[in-house]
Amino acid sequence: MSRLDSMINRLVAQRSILDHAAALIAGVPGPVLELGLGNGRTFDHLREKLPDREIFVFERKITASPRSIPDSDHVILGEIRDTLPFCGPRVGAAAALIHADLSNGDPTDDLSRRSWLSPMVADRAAPGAVVVSGHALDLPGFDELPLPEGIRPGRYYLYRKQ
Amino acid sequence: MSRLDSMINRLVAQRSILDHAAALIAGVPGPVLELGLGNGRTFDHLREKLPDREIFVFERKITASPRSIPDSDHVILGEIRDTLPFCGPRVGAAAALIHADLSNGDPTDDLSRRSWLSPMVADRAAPGAVVVSGHALDLPGFDELPLPEGIRPGRYYLYRKQ
Ligand SMILES: C[S@@+](CC[C@H](N)C(=O)[O-])C[C@H]1O[C@@H](n2cnc3c(N)ncnc32)[C@H](O)[C@@H]1O
Ligand code: NI
Ligand code: NI
Repeated sequence: MSRLDSMINRLVAQRSILDHAAALIAGVPGPVLELGLGNGRTFDHLREKLPDREIFVFERKITASPRSIPDSDHVILGEIRDTLPFCGPRVGAAAALIHADLSNGDPTDDLSRRSWLSPMVADRAAPGAVVVSGHALDLPGFDELPLPEGIRPGRYYLYRKQ
Repeated sequence: MSRLDSMINRLVAQRSILDHAAALIAGVPGPVLELGLGNGRTFDHLREKLPDREIFVFERKITASPRSIPDSDHVILGEIRDTLPFCGPRVGAAAALIHADLSNGDPTDDLSRRSWLSPMVADRAAPGAVVVSGHALDLPGFDELPLPEGIRPGRYYLYRKQ
């Protein structure tokens, strides 16, 4: 498989899991938390699929194209490890969907992030909330859900708060 | 359509036109010229589809991941406007396939490149050679071919030397 093939597969899987998650939260009130803006493609997709939701983006450094940057009320700038536990006053209600696409591909870094991020995510999720992550999280009190058709296990992780 | 959707469509169209071009040149001898390495995804794809061809990459500044950089014999470093007319001693035979993915999306820049690049491409192409370009070229003595199914006109241009 060429890198062009892999990139297509990765983006198609990403779209398919986000669309699936958007459908799952239909009955769950609350905002969306996008952890990591990157180039803004998934933010733009979530904004299109969930036009009635507030979407808050957490990012250390904005590099996306201006077309895909939320207004300043909805950008929470800084290290997620610092900001996520203190976002309550701005974000308000617990989140219906949390999407974490933070991995740089290094397994040690993933393990470290898993340890500090998991309790923060659990804390900010509403009952019935869905969590989509590019690496595994430890979420007691959540169920791990099967991935949509065509996504290989380990590419994404999908959890739902009980 | 979200930017995630557009990116998927763009990459799928790119793969489909490159696969089509690779099939078209089955009977045409000669190397492949990749004008612009970028992140190396299309180079990697061409290398996989055309394992028996020499592929020469023309690039002003190498930024691709090391996995997708050709060996130094096959990288022609510098401004294409300067190097392409003088690549004969290194490249040898006229090319069977020339892929130009050089546009930065600015129409004035595209018009300028079209003017200097077209005669150089015409010069380096073998009889029966295929040219795939992200913007229009002026190639007298070439036929413009229909695009593969599903690619909207104007996204790519496909030419074949008579
Ligand atoms: C892979 S990109 C996100 C891509 C995005 N989901 C998309 O597809 O368009 C990851 C982003 O997360 C940010 N990031 C990673 N770790 C972070 C942290 N601990 N705090 C804040 N931002 C972080 C990086 O700066 C980068 O922009
Ligand atoms: Ni708002
Ligand atoms: Ni060689």
